[in-house]
Amino acid sequence: MGNTFGHLFRVTTWGESHGPAIGAVIDGCPPLLHLCESDIQPDLDRRAPGQSAIVTQRKESDTVRILSGVFEGQTLGTPISLFIPNEDMRSGDYREVQEKYRPSHADYTYDAKFGIRDWRGGGRTSARETAGRVAAGAIARKLLWERYGVEVVGWVSKVAQLTVESDVERVTRSEVDQTPIRCPDLQVAAQMIAAVEAARKAGNSLGGVVTLAARGCPPGWGEPVFDRLEADLAKAVLSLPASKGFEIGSGFGGTDLTGMEHNDAFFMEGDRVRTRTNRSGGVQGGISNGETIYFRVAFKPTATVMREQHTVSARHEDTTIQGRGRHDPCVLPRAVPLVEAMAALVLVDHALRYDAVRPAK
Amino acid sequence: MGNTFGHLFRVTTWGESHGPAIGAVIDGCPPLLHLCESDIQPDLDRRAPGQSAIVTQRKESDTVRILSGVFEGQTLGTPISLFIPNEDMRSGDYREVQEKYRPSHADYTYDAKFGIRDWRGGGRTSARETAGRVAAGAIARKLLWERYGVEVVGWVSKVAQLTVESDVERVTRSEVDQTPIRCPDLQVAAQMIAAVEAARKAGNSLGGVVTLAARGCPPGWGEPVFDRLEADLAKAVLSLPASKGFEIGSGFGGTDLTGMEHNDAFFMEGDRVRTRTNRSGGVQGGISNGETIYFRVAFKPTATVMREQHTVSARHEDTTIQGRGRHDPCVLPRAVPLVEAMAALVLVDHALRYDAVRPAK
Amino acid sequence: MGNTFGHLFRVTTWGESHGPAIGAVIDGCPPLLHLCESDIQPDLDRRAPGQSAIVTQRKESDTVRILSGVFEGQTLGTPISLFIPNEDMRSGDYREVQEKYRPSHADYTYDAKFGIRDWRGGGRTSARETAGRVAAGAIARKLLWERYGVEVVGWVSKVAQLTVESDVERVTRSEVDQTPIRCPDLQVAAQMIAAVEAARKAGNSLGGVVTLAARGCPPGWGEPVFDRLEADLAKAVLSLPASKGFEIGSGFGGTDLTGMEHNDAFFMEGDRVRTRTNRSGGVQGGISNGETIYFRVAFKPTATVMREQHTVSARHEDTTIQGRGRHDPCVLPRAVPLVEAMAALVLVDHALRYDAVRPAK
Amino acid sequence: MGNTFGHLFRVTTWGESHGPAIGAVIDGCPPLLHLCESDIQPDLDRRAPGQSAIVTQRKESDTVRILSGVFEGQTLGTPISLFIPNEDMRSGDYREVQEKYRPSHADYTYDAKFGIRDWRGGGRTSARETAGRVAAGAIARKLLWERYGVEVVGWVSKVAQLTVESDVERVTRSEVDQTPIRCPDLQVAAQMIAAVEAARKAGNSLGGVVTLAARGCPPGWGEPVFDRLEADLAKAVLSLPASKGFEIGSGFGGTDLTGMEHNDAFFMEGDRVRTRTNRSGGVQGGISNGETIYFRVAFKPTATVMREQHTVSARHEDTTIQGRGRHDPCVLPRAVPLVEAMAALVLVDHALRYDAVRPAK
Repeated sequence: MGNTFGHLFRVTTWGESHGPAIGAVIDGCPPLLHLCESDIQPDLDRRAPGQSAIVTQRKESDTVRILSGVFEGQTLGTPISLFIPNEDMRSGDYREVQEKYRPSHADYTYDAKFGIRDWRGGGRTSARETAGRVAAGAIARKLLWERYGVEVVGWVSKVAQLTVESDVERVTRSEVDQTPIRCPDLQVAAQMIAAVEAARKAGNSLGGVVTLAARGCPPGWGEPVFDRLEADLAKAVLSLPASKGFEIGSGFGGTDLTGMEHNDAFFMEGDRVRTRTNRSGGVQGGISNGETIYFRVAFKPTATVMREQHTVSARHEDTTIQGRGRHDPCVLPRAVPLVEAMAALVLVDHALRYDAVRPAK
Repeated sequence: MGNTFGHLFRVTTWGESHGPAIGAVIDGCPPLLHLCESDIQPDLDRRAPGQSAIVTQRKESDTVRILSGVFEGQTLGTPISLFIPNEDMRSGDYREVQEKYRPSHADYTYDAKFGIRDWRGGGRTSARETAGRVAAGAIARKLLWERYGVEVVGWVSKVAQLTVESDVERVTRSEVDQTPIRCPDLQVAAQMIAAVEAARKAGNSLGGVVTLAARGCPPGWGEPVFDRLEADLAKAVLSLPASKGFEIGSGFGGTDLTGMEHNDAFFMEGDRVRTRTNRSGGVQGGISNGETIYFRVAFKPTATVMREQHTVSARHEDTTIQGRGRHDPCVLPRAVPLVEAMAALVLVDHALRYDAVRPAK
Repeated sequence: MGNTFGHLFRVTTWGESHGPAIGAVIDGCPPLLHLCESDIQPDLDRRAPGQSAIVTQRKESDTVRILSGVFEGQTLGTPISLFIPNEDMRSGDYREVQEKYRPSHADYTYDAKFGIRDWRGGGRTSARETAGRVAAGAIARKLLWERYGVEVVGWVSKVAQLTVESDVERVTRSEVDQTPIRCPDLQVAAQMIAAVEAARKAGNSLGGVVTLAARGCPPGWGEPVFDRLEADLAKAVLSLPASKGFEIGSGFGGTDLTGMEHNDAFFMEGDRVRTRTNRSGGVQGGISNGETIYFRVAFKPTATVMREQHTVSARHEDTTIQGRGRHDPCVLPRAVPLVEAMAALVLVDHALRYDAVRPAK
Repeated sequence: MGNTFGHLFRVTTWGESHGPAIGAVIDGCPPLLHLCESDIQPDLDRRAPGQSAIVTQRKESDTVRILSGVFEGQTLGTPISLFIPNEDMRSGDYREVQEKYRPSHADYTYDAKFGIRDWRGGGRTSARETAGRVAAGAIARKLLWERYGVEVVGWVSKVAQLTVESDVERVTRSEVDQTPIRCPDLQVAAQMIAAVEAARKAGNSLGGVVTLAARGCPPGWGEPVFDRLEADLAKAVLSLPASKGFEIGSGFGGTDLTGMEHNDAFFMEGDRVRTRTNRSGGVQGGISNGETIYFRVAFKPTATVMREQHTVSARHEDTTIQGRGRHDPCVLPRAVPLVEAMAALVLVDHALRYDAVRPAK
């Protein structure tokens, strides 16, 4: 269980890191959306390994193929099956993982839960699984943009202790993609890249924060009580590997303020209800208010480091393990398309829900 | 939609703040659990208004009645219907809310979504709705403790800029309940209470953080990919009114560390796999590892303040509004049982899921 | 589990036969539907015990109260909680049931599943549970009629071996309600009533068939593959107590025909696509085609008979049991509103789904 | 939506008849089940086209490949992705279908719903979609047998007006597979085959009934109220193409009996509670009672006939259409593995649910 996401726009992903392929099935995409592989591939390329010197050097073209749900360039309203072959698998790198649990990885917990695990490349626990999400998210993003005029943009706002505050109303994807670290501030980006390279050389790793902005959402998306928009967004991004935190709008920092300081005053801008500030992060009472939705996601430093660490074996004996193989010294640049994909999936789902429960007359 | 939570242990809440009653229906509670109203009432009392000088003075006894699902003191395995009458309703206090949108409240977004809203006491957007969750959570907590030996304890770890770091392994509920602010550190608690009283007198409000620890979870709870334990916990607490952030284990602070610093080394303690540190927060790859699960939840300062603020009317004209009625100057002490309830609901749901997918032989 | 029905228009029922009350919560009803108790009560009255000489003489007013989700006469879009007190409970009639399993009842299977059962009046297995469904169904029927112009009419078409073929295009509710047996053919109705009275006097019971017609559904309701309209209708009615079969359109009888005889030829009627015959029952490929949807539901003879029968005790010893208490000698007349309610719930759910997945442009 | 089935053992199917492939993803299969392609292929072969002279002559090897979820011959507990390439596609046969709606097919309703349809081979409406179900069902059957000792056997009990009553306790799969029509009575089977051949020569088609028996289910599977075992079984089989009816146990015929005749008296057989008769069909109150579960499913005559029929065009003009291509003159023999697959999916799902809700102590 747990491999399906969404209520009306439903995504199921499948696949292990070193199996023949990975993929996703999307059920609930409306018909008559223009769609072909080239709408999806660019997002996959932004997630792909080997795209720059500061990410893992595993070589995967991540070429997606649409196996169903599209006919003559348009969606049918039936399930869209996306298929991505695995190519550059070096299971030999993982022989030690077969016998030992890597610290802060999921080797132990999968064994504890299932009594079996595919140790080759981490199996299902590998971040490779996220390729299916990104592919599905690309379709969600297209639908959001074409039908609703909603734009989803994410960027790296923190690596280790290097932080940047960008304007959530203005950052563009082209600014983000100017550097391989995906931070829109070029000066800080350069420092971040240097830090990641230093960590890589030291066999160490770094964490950081992705900020995401969704602009153009109409008021009314989100459901009362349990399926609040921020609740579903939090779940979406906390389901990403290595994520440790989520905050929307003012977030944890907002707890330093008083109510008078924190409240977002309403005002009319033409015939549109606006707020002067946006500490709410575009969501009030779980429902979008028409302002930009923005949130931050914390990612821990990559668990795989090229040093010897204490651990236990699969036979439950104390031992040590030495990181090997090809890994990201910092997941942040590749996490940007993941966060975008998950945000898009949540927003599309709530857009469709909104359309379903319009007033009775 | 959106008023049901859980996959196997399912809770549906209903009710508006000034309607005749509120309640919850639990579907999926296993049979033969000893249960009566007195198992639930103490948790409701911890959430109730009027319990101390630093919370809202609305007078609600919040007396719960079990209407179904229990027979001769034991659960039947059928739905448990919980009923809590509303008593002290002063809808007159809300006349202005009928005409104007309160800043950082959900008045505007509900109108935008539904085209109608119950303005009396905030209707469904009122925190009063959470009584149903707390009642359901009390049952979940009892099941967690009696069947699985799992203990769930939450406390206030931050009010405005007053912070306390307590040992997540040791804080007890009786320590938490020593003061009305529910901070286990008596010295800081006194400062927090003073800060809340000052805010109340000033017609202002404060925010803060609740920390929660779940101790005794076995390894193996949680599902791969989308229904990771931390993802479901994040959704659970971000569905609470006024919550703005969630972080598990090292959280946002962990992004300052390197992988070598952050990793939790495994070791054997007797025949049990343990970790030396617990920056993972008890969850790895979305699945519990047997260590204490702990996380923090940010709550913004209460939106209702007793000052004039700029806003717009329901007819979309600029205007001002003055806070009135009885409100919490700080939601934190009453948020503790809410966070506990939501955590318990998530954990029980995953406990049942774990039981369902045991290995094929 | 299993006490919730529907994907977008979701109904959860709760309650045991001799508990303090029974009820239902509806989540997903669109806002701004005019609704009050008097929209629901007439359907409950048609289901109520004691309504005529040929049904059980238990005296229940089945007075429904709306506890939430409605404000100033209109739905809010929030959960609608419906509450029906139990009144005329004679648990003493069931003392023997505490010790012995009634043949063809659920006493044994509930014990086997749950290890506990509420034997008073059958507890959750009592048909009394269906009052919650009927109340929810009344709201669904109102929405179907007011928003979509769809009319749902059911009637008794068979009691024991007495059968009537009525025109599914024309039967009206007022025709159905002319007699307490709810068969629109007055002559056959009189025979049916006589047969039921004879069975009652003999301490025996009868079964039969309800036919249902839903008129005015637009083409396009229903989902491909698993959630076909007829699949959801079949599930809905097979979830009713005592139901044993479902057939749509030509049903089992259609297996006697050849394809040439069975096919429904299309033709244009003005600008509307119609079929000459309607052996499909208004559904093709799981999706409504605009013709009248009609189906038949088989109900077995009531399991409770006033004779001594062989059975086993709760301690698993052979014994005999004698039917006691107040029971329906034939469930058919009271089954009509049940089938209507379940059909309405399915149709509304698919109507909302249809609205959610409209083409992308 | 609507392409996923099950609550704990969840199957999602995808694919169009003339797309590159079809497939299924199973989420929730327990780990450590021995599984390889050869466990699945035999069931697919029983469903495959071209297997005998009385079914469609489309040539599909239907070779299944497992792409994920299995490692070193055992299930991992992660999603199992099943992939079946399409091979023998003659889309040219369907040119006329592009322009005209085939009577009693889903061409019109798909157009009405989606505004687009893949007319090649019927696209998603083709029975080819069921290959994914059969593959998933093979896994469910294996789990049922190996973990629970439950056996699922289906057979053809009626073709046109040729009927056979077999003993639901005894029919074996090898008896069923003695003839290509899959009727265990050799004499009637020969008549059925002759009837199907005659229909084929006449360009006509026939319908019939499949009977299914599930033997060895323990008492306690199934949920109260909406997810009754018979309700889920009814939904499962009514979701199959061409199905028009379902009846369990005594079914429609049971409505001819009185309660005294119909009731199944309990008795003790050793320490096991049994019933003398089994008109309940192995299910009471929605929950299995340990007796053989059996039901019947009606399938209409194949809609495609090789004759000219009246219909309308996609432009909504009256016209005629002539059946072409390769089709089953009678779906019954190939329907047997479909009904078995769907029954197995329901039973496994309820087996896992039962395991999840065991009593609290």
